[in-house]
Amino acid sequence: MPPGGTAKPAPSGPGKRDVNAIDLILAKRDGGRLSDEQIDWFIRSYTDGLVVDEQAAALLMAILFRGLDPDELARWTQQMIATGSRADLSGVGKPTVDKHSTGGVGDKVSLVLCPLVAACGVAVPQTAGRGLGHTGGTLDKMETIPGWRSTLTPDEVSDVLRTSGAVINAAGPDLAPADRKLYALRDITGTVESIPLIASSIMSKKIAEGTGALVLDVKVGSGAFMKDEGRARELAETMVGLGRAHDVLTVALLTQMDVPLGRSAGNALEVTESIEVLGGGGPSDLVELTLSLAREMLDLVGLEAVDPADLLSDGRAMDAWQAMVRAQGGDPEATLPRAREVEVVAAPATGTLARLDAMAVGVAAWRLGAGRARKEDDVSATAGVVWHATVGDHVEAGAPLLELHLDDPSRLPSALEALDDAIEVSPDAVAPPPMILGRVT
Amino acid sequence: MPPGGTAKPAPSGPGKRDVNAIDLILAKRDGGRLSDEQIDWFIRSYTDGLVVDEQAAALLMAILFRGLDPDELARWTQQMIATGSRADLSGVGKPTVDKHSTGGVGDKVSLVLCPLVAACGVAVPQTAGRGLGHTGGTLDKMETIPGWRSTLTPDEVSDVLRTSGAVINAAGPDLAPADRKLYALRDITGTVESIPLIASSIMSKKIAEGTGALVLDVKVGSGAFMKDEGRARELAETMVGLGRAHDVLTVALLTQMDVPLGRSAGNALEVTESIEVLGGGGPSDLVELTLSLAREMLDLVGLEAVDPADLLSDGRAMDAWQAMVRAQGGDPEATLPRAREVEVVAAPATGTLARLDAMAVGVAAWRLGAGRARKEDDVSATAGVVWHATVGDHVEAGAPLLELHLDDPSRLPSALEALDDAIEVSPDAVAPPPMILGRVT
Repeated sequence: MPPGGTAKPAPSGPGKRDVNAIDLILAKRDGGRLSDEQIDWFIRSYTDGLVVDEQAAALLMAILFRGLDPDELARWTQQMIATGSRADLSGVGKPTVDKHSTGGVGDKVSLVLCPLVAACGVAVPQTAGRGLGHTGGTLDKMETIPGWRSTLTPDEVSDVLRTSGAVINAAGPDLAPADRKLYALRDITGTVESIPLIASSIMSKKIAEGTGALVLDVKVGSGAFMKDEGRARELAETMVGLGRAHDVLTVALLTQMDVPLGRSAGNALEVTESIEVLGGGGPSDLVELTLSLAREMLDLVGLEAVDPADLLSDGRAMDAWQAMVRAQGGDPEATLPRAREVEVVAAPATGTLARLDAMAVGVAAWRLGAGRARKEDDVSATAGVVWHATVGDHVEAGAPLLELHLDDPSRLPSALEALDDAIEVSPDAVAPPPMILGRVT
Repeated sequence: MPPGGTAKPAPSGPGKRDVNAIDLILAKRDGGRLSDEQIDWFIRSYTDGLVVDEQAAALLMAILFRGLDPDELARWTQQMIATGSRADLSGVGKPTVDKHSTGGVGDKVSLVLCPLVAACGVAVPQTAGRGLGHTGGTLDKMETIPGWRSTLTPDEVSDVLRTSGAVINAAGPDLAPADRKLYALRDITGTVESIPLIASSIMSKKIAEGTGALVLDVKVGSGAFMKDEGRARELAETMVGLGRAHDVLTVALLTQMDVPLGRSAGNALEVTESIEVLGGGGPSDLVELTLSLAREMLDLVGLEAVDPADLLSDGRAMDAWQAMVRAQGGDPEATLPRAREVEVVAAPATGTLARLDAMAVGVAAWRLGAGRARKEDDVSATAGVVWHATVGDHVEAGAPLLELHLDDPSRLPSALEALDDAIEVSPDAVAPPPMILGRVT
């Protein structure tokens, strides 16, 4: 009788076997390579529902332990793209470039960057996602603008790119459909944290959206998915390699996410802050990161001579924002919703703000209602956190340091609890952390 | 937006979370221990269908890579047993002892051993399985006896144990039901080869059947599940430890399975050979192993003074066999079915048989129809392989060495192909391999 399970001597059983899920799992589990044929078969068959979730889950866990080499990963990603189609944006008549962030707290950069780069004469075909967990999603933020919608058809995307130049759109059904199934499966099977799986998920969608060039903002720190710079660099290198393998010019910046970005985390709050930057103001850390990413994007399409800072100060970026919002049905003049209540947290001491923990702020905003725990959940447009100072700034004991915006008072205690160890004030001078930690080309 | 997947900062999300599948997977994936509470919850919830297969598959793959420590494994096994109930055989009025083999080619030992040990005055409450892959199953063999059935109720089992003393029965619905689901899942997810999962699968059923003592025959070699003595020893030690943790006196022998056992592999063929041994004859390797295991079983219940060899030669074992077969509805006098065709393979040279590969013989018998590829498949009662010599025996070029028994002629070519490299004849003397490789107590 079989010893608590069956041996599967695949080639010696009755009759030869075709490519099948068990052989793939065993090969990867035991440290081997998957052949192109196996990868093609798996991605196609899993997407079509011919491979069951439990076999896919076992394979993903084996990949988490064993990895995928660059050739396996390029094929894997190519097949994910091939379950849908790669958009052809050649009719747009401009170079195309996009940006992707691995997600941070207060990261509203896309809202400024898309119109800013578009205002330089480049098309930005951004496919954006919704927030999950403690990081927000670009679509959730944009949707706080009355009338704005993220469901442009491929033809509408091309039209908008030709005219106003920037699009922020939700993934359509044809954008790497394999990723939707794999992403949902990884989410419940503890296989999110695999670098090749993260890289293929991000890059399959970015390549399929049709952009010719791509700048990646890989966040590192407490509020980021990657806490560790080594792993963040590995992810950046993996994604840059994948871009190259698919003829998308790709550059990555590693940027700090120990401190949340700008001065707010929350959907409408971040739109408001983005509009400040587009009008030439806004906090310096957010402006610095946005300009750094804009310069990388312009470099990739040969527009090194344009200084994007000029477009923030002279109103052209704001014009492009308004055009972009209008092109997707939004009213850029409309008043944004505000929370019913604002709870103020005072600075605990006088001195220099030495610590403002990005994860704590992100979790507080999430608990106030800005984020979702499951993808079916609704998010609040208005909830979130505003901080009046960031690391390196002087604070006065008792003066307002944080604002907690919320509509549902029952959410306050757990949000405050998240902030328990978030703040530290030092009697000594403290330098703000460098924004750009590295660059991978 | 989330980086191709969601971070799950479990304790910091909105609201605290109870025991859940993702936390279990992450803990094991990252090399941690599962708590008793987590193990209890998982085994119960998976058996009840509250944890989905894909999460269980991911956990099993993480266990394959990370293992379970002895305390985790004892708890895991205890919970598997607790999904059903542990039989109480105290009413039988005799000591109870069973044997389990991890599966080999030509391994019909149970058929002889159960009545032999019962004839010594001990009850043998064997729960047996069906074959899968290249190894046969005890139930498949017994079912070739006209009338014999393996579906005794718990009360019938107790009655038979009290009277004739030996039972070979199929697992009832209450015997570690968790194992049925876990076993089926492991089978399709590449997670069979995990020592703690093998050990818990075997031992949960053996402990639940209610035996007071247990001898394990852990096979090592080409035809065994464990090809490697180190891993076989690890499995043996793990199972002996689990037995001890559940108050079942347990001993394991490591025995060779590079050469198939006895002289036949195939369901009715093996019954015939077993009857030869019960009548005091049969091949010496099979007799030696059977007596070694019988002595271990008798030792465990304090009957060291009884020599089981005497019971083979004086007819008492045969009487017990006939009683056992009759007690389960079988006719021990009935003629066993025979295959329609016998294809003879001649020895390729004169000399000493130096190699008769157990896996090749097992696969040939499987391909002839003796085994099943999927558990729904039927098996042939008659198909199989008989070998006239074993390693160390003299063979003459051109004289019959193998018989291939089959009813379906189309199966012959693939069976012959399996035997391509199975046989080697040497001009020099070759010692047969030692049968007992080690003992674990």
